[in-house]
Amino acid sequence: MDGVLDNLKLFDHVRVVLSHTTHPGNIGAAARAMKAMGLRHLYLINPRHFPDPQAHAMAAGADDVLENAVVCASIDEALQGVVLTVGMTARVRDISNEVSSPREAMPQVLQQAATQPVALLFGTEMSGLTNEEVSRSQLLVNIPANPEFSSLNLAAAVQVISYELSVASETCQPVVQQAQPAAHQQVEGLMTHLEKTLHEIGFFTTQNPSRMMQRLRRLYARARLESDEVNILRGILSVTTEYNARLKIRFQQEQSKD
Amino acid sequence: MDGVLDNLKLFDHVRVVLSHTTHPGNIGAAARAMKAMGLRHLYLINPRHFPDPQAHAMAAGADDVLENAVVCASIDEALQGVVLTVGMTARVRDISNEVSSPREAMPQVLQQAATQPVALLFGTEMSGLTNEEVSRSQLLVNIPANPEFSSLNLAAAVQVISYELSVASETCQPVVQQAQPAAHQQVEGLMTHLEKTLHEIGFFTTQNPSRMMQRLRRLYARARLESDEVNILRGILSVTTEYNARLKIRFQQEQSKD
Repeated sequence: MDGVLDNLKLFDHVRVVLSHTTHPGNIGAAARAMKAMGLRHLYLINPRHFPDPQAHAMAAGADDVLENAVVCASIDEALQGVVLTVGMTARVRDISNEVSSPREAMPQVLQQAATQPVALLFGTEMSGLTNEEVSRSQLLVNIPANPEFSSLNLAAAVQVISYELSVASETCQPVVQQAQPAAHQQVEGLMTHLEKTLHEIGFFTTQNPSRMMQRLRRLYARARLESDEVNILRGILSVTTEYNARLKIRFQQEQSKD
Repeated sequence: MDGVLDNLKLFDHVRVVLSHTTHPGNIGAAARAMKAMGLRHLYLINPRHFPDPQAHAMAAGADDVLENAVVCASIDEALQGVVLTVGMTARVRDISNEVSSPREAMPQVLQQAATQPVALLFGTEMSGLTNEEVSRSQLLVNIPANPEFSSLNLAAAVQVISYELSVASETCQPVVQQAQPAAHQQVEGLMTHLEKTLHEIGFFTTQNPSRMMQRLRRLYARARLESDEVNILRGILSVTTEYNARLKIRFQQEQSKD
C-alpha cells in the first residue's frame, strides 16, 4: 500500500487533545506542529481564548486544523469513542502509573490507530495534567528532558510527540487485532458502575473511596480492557448488587417474621 | 562514567547557530528548547533584534542561554573551531549534498562532539539556509515533514533536533578517534588557497569559478578532511604555484634571450 495514503488513514484516527490551554498562541503553534507532521484532528477542552487571532497568527497556514478543531466542555466529551488515551506528563507522579518514552509509546499508538481512535492528551501550560486527566489515560508518556530545566513549551511538546509519531509511522507495521478494545465511554461506564456497586455493598466503610477508585482505575488502565470484558465485569457487578438486593429483602423478611 | 556528567561534557562541544533570525521571540523559544534538552551554547549570526525583551519572554527561564549567547558578524566567525557543521534544510536542493534524517545524523554529531566542537546550523525563518551556509556544512539534515505543509517553526525545528540529540546521547557511545578532524577555519583556508591557485594557473578561463568551487567544496565536505590532510593539500597548492612561478620566470628568460 502507498506509504502516504497509509499514514493518512492511520493519522485519521489520531486526535491531539489540549486541555484548558491558557494562551491561544500555543494552540496555533500546536496546530502548525501537528500539520507539519501530518496530523489534523485537534480537540480543545475549555480553552481560555478560542477562536482567537493569536491562534491563527501562530498557526502560520495551519488554519484548517484550527477551523476544524472540536471544542469540548469536558475530558469525557473529548475522549468519546477513544480506545487508547496517552497522557503527556513532565513529572514522576506519586501513584506510579506506567510511564513510557515517546519512542516506546508511539508504535503502540499507531497499533491502535490502525482500527480505532486514539488520543494524545496534553495538560495546561502551567501545571500539566490534572489527576482526573491522568486517571483517564491508559498510558503516560514523559519527554526526557534536562532534570534542572524540564520546562517544554506546550507546542514544543506537541511537536516532539507528533514528530515521533510520524517517524514511527515510517517503520511501524500495525497488526490487525482480533480483540475489540473498549472505548473510553465504556470504561467510564464501568468505573461509575463499579464505584456505585462498592458503595452499595458497603466496601467503602473501611476505605477511602477516591483513593481506592484511583487504584482500581490504574489496574484496569494497565489491563487495556476489551469491549467484551467490560460487559463481563459489568455483568458481575449487576449480579453482585442483585444478590445484595435479594439478601436485603430476605433480611427484611426475616426481621418482619420476628 | 556518570551519564549526566558525560552528556554535560559532550553537549559542551555542541553549539546551536541561528543565522539572521528575524523574530526575537524565536530566539527565546529556541533557547528554551535547547535548555530543556540540556544544550546551552547559542550563537547568533546578525540577528535582526537582539537582545530583545521578546526573546526573554519566550525563553521562559532559559535566560542564561540568552545571556551567554555569542553574537557573530559572519558564518565563519560563528563556525570558528568547529570540525563538523550540520545544516538544517527543509528543501531538497539542486546540488545534491548528502542529506540525512535527524536520527541518522545525531550519532555522528555526538561522535565528533566527544572531542571537538560541532555546530547545528539553522537558517532564517522565511528562507532557510543560504547557498553559502549550505557550502559551509559537511552534512545536511532534513526533518521529515508533511509534503503538503513542511513549514516547521524555527524553534520547533531546534526542539526536534535537540530532542534527537538528547535521546541519541542516552545510547550513543562515542569512540575516541585517532585522526584529528580539520577545523572550520582550516577548511576555509584551504578553499581560499585552492581558489586562488586555480585562478593563478588559469584553470578558470574555461570554467565558471563559483560553480566549480561549489562542486569542490561538496567533494571535500564529503571527505570530512583531517587536519593533516589540509596541510598536505595546501602543500600541493603551494608547490603548484611555485612551479607555475618558476615556469613564468623561465618563459620570461627564454623570451629575453630571443
